[in-house]
Amino acid sequence: MIDITDPAVGMVQLVIFTVEPNSQQQIASAIADQVEKTVAHRAGFLSATYHLSTDGTQIMNYAQWTSTDAFDAFVTNPAARAALADLDGILSTTGSAWRIHRAVTPASAR
Amino acid sequence: MIDITDPAVGMVQLVIFTVEPNSQQQIASAIADQVEKTVAHRAGFLSATYHLSTDGTQIMNYAQWTSTDAFDAFVTNPAARAALADLDGILSTTGSAWRIHRAVTPASAR
Repeated sequence: MIDITDPAVGMVQLVIFTVEPNSQQQIASAIADQVEKTVAHRAGFLSATYHLSTDGTQIMNYAQWTSTDAFDAFVTNPAARAALADLDGILSTTGSAWRIHRAVTPASAR
Repeated sequence: MIDITDPAVGMVQLVIFTVEPNSQQQIASAIADQVEKTVAHRAGFLSATYHLSTDGTQIMNYAQWTSTDAFDAFVTNPAARAALADLDGILSTTGSAWRIHRAVTPASAR
């Protein structure tokens, strides 16, 4: 269970990878494997969920961190990032930082 | 509680709004208000969570639907979308469709 509205979430990092055709699932699994071995051991890491675009061209990671400081400490650590640099088939990567504003749930659930 | 890995989630719709400076929080609240009144009553809608980019320029909605068909039925309904068209300050909107591939949780939690 990964709760989007968990109060422990201090920042959300959205990373979108554009990948070579027909490599989407394989690359998503390879990235998740690496993250499981490295980032998942870092203080402040809460979750990383990999999504596949229905058009087959992109992978999106919705990642939860306890704070921007915790994420920055990861990003500035070269060892933690080197593993991803070795993966083939990633054409481009963009990242953006977010905080939760408000959630809307079904009317029937209120 | 909004579970990213809820098995009921058939598709994730990511919508990113670029907004006028200093209007981010107000517009995010206005969109969420409209969605609460309209989309939240539709069959197949599971959740919509509004995020603010830390740079102040964008709003991101991470929305869960039971299926692509349920989402398509909403998108092709003019009445359900008209409310958003009346909001001022939205410079551009992009949407993309995703499905969950895999989630990674902290090593300490495994």
